[in-house]
Amino acid sequence: MSKEKLTIIKIGGNVIDTPEILDRFLQDFSQMEGFKILVHGGGKEATRLAGKLGIETVMVDGRRVTDKEMLEVAVMTYAGLCNKKIVALLQKFDTQAIGLTGADGNSILSKKRETGSVDYGFVGDITGINADWIKSLLETGATPVFCAITHDKKGQLLNTNADTVAQSLAVGLSPLFDITLIYCFEKKGVLTDIHNEDSVIEELTLASYQELKEKNVIHSGMLPKLENCFQALQQGVKEIRIANPEIIANPKVLHTHISM
Amino acid sequence: MSKEKLTIIKIGGNVIDTPEILDRFLQDFSQMEGFKILVHGGGKEATRLAGKLGIETVMVDGRRVTDKEMLEVAVMTYAGLCNKKIVALLQKFDTQAIGLTGADGNSILSKKRETGSVDYGFVGDITGINADWIKSLLETGATPVFCAITHDKKGQLLNTNADTVAQSLAVGLSPLFDITLIYCFEKKGVLTDIHNEDSVIEELTLASYQELKEKNVIHSGMLPKLENCFQALQQGVKEIRIANPEIIANPKVLHTHISM
Repeated sequence: MSKEKLTIIKIGGNVIDTPEILDRFLQDFSQMEGFKILVHGGGKEATRLAGKLGIETVMVDGRRVTDKEMLEVAVMTYAGLCNKKIVALLQKFDTQAIGLTGADGNSILSKKRETGSVDYGFVGDITGINADWIKSLLETGATPVFCAITHDKKGQLLNTNADTVAQSLAVGLSPLFDITLIYCFEKKGVLTDIHNEDSVIEELTLASYQELKEKNVIHSGMLPKLENCFQALQQGVKEIRIANPEIIANPKVLHTHISM
Repeated sequence: MSKEKLTIIKIGGNVIDTPEILDRFLQDFSQMEGFKILVHGGGKEATRLAGKLGIETVMVDGRRVTDKEMLEVAVMTYAGLCNKKIVALLQKFDTQAIGLTGADGNSILSKKRETGSVDYGFVGDITGINADWIKSLLETGATPVFCAITHDKKGQLLNTNADTVAQSLAVGLSPLFDITLIYCFEKKGVLTDIHNEDSVIEELTLASYQELKEKNVIHSGMLPKLENCFQALQQGVKEIRIANPEIIANPKVLHTHISM
């Protein structure tokens, strides 16, 4: 029996931090048919609030260290301000949105990252997705909107990377749905030349990715992102797209399509 | 056909602000059988965060004025910090909790209060409950945990009194369920003598309430609370209890039972 389609879309700071772009995106998202899930990052709100409260943002290797105070800031801004603003706007556009952290409905279980050479603090690595319950929630007509906060089911909330949340939901829900995962970001897709906005690689397979990686055409920050994509495809996700938010209104717009 | 039972419990600052009391209450709440909904106030977090951010708390007639900055503080603390802390703890105690504002699932619709002699700002008066959807959410096995933020379905979040949220949910869901509404607060119930903790009025009917009101035994702050209770009973709520949080573990503990 063929499974129903589910589209999971991740948006980051570039969408969240600009009211007009967010509004446009959420209108387009509301028009999308079928089951869908939105995952959002935090944008600049957390850094802004931390600054106002005099809490220092400590970054190690480009990652935020989440101490107790910073976790509270993340919960207030991601699960509070950003999530509820998005939910209220989606409701305005007649989408039956419901905002969630991984604690809500025990939907995303994680484990506090063990302290190695760096103590990242209250950061959670995802260990499980409550796929059956998320499916039953979708079947009530709701569109889940996830922020990047998870929990350990021992009462502790944990900060988690939003890309990883989207990927884990895609993998965890793939036994129940045909999943398309779309990462929206500021570029049009994976570029061969960072200085040329239109140098988009339109099709990436594991073979072509490995070739481009060897030739150093794809490098640095894009590598872990794409490694995660191929991992997700190997674990059952049907297809992945990396694109500008414009793709939601116009699925044929120039973008990167990734498949095995 | 008899309706299924649903218990709606409202807790306030006295429970939320004391970790041991909150933990005890949530454990007891987790043990309760049948459909249940938790509604919580904000406790002192909002005032504390506003203070840290240098935002002045303006009160008129004992009510907080909610300007744009204060609304953000309310959303961050009520929908973020307090709500998600409660949800994570309930999950620890194996309750399938899901945290909600009125925007989530369009569950509680409100209208911005019109400016009369006082402009209360972003304060919402409840105009509707999405009872069918809340019922379908309960049927997924979830236990909703509401904070006192609602929305106008035009994209605007609004601050709303938590007692009113509990009352409106009780009235709105009464066509679908047999509702018991329990207001938990720091006293054992409605007292005839504020200085005597045990002077609890165990049974209140509309007739006995009016008599006690005339004799000035019940007065001041208790009056609007009880008027709201009788209004809710007239609108279909089956019974209301005003009690200490202890009632959850021990239903026979001394408390006030209110019926028509």
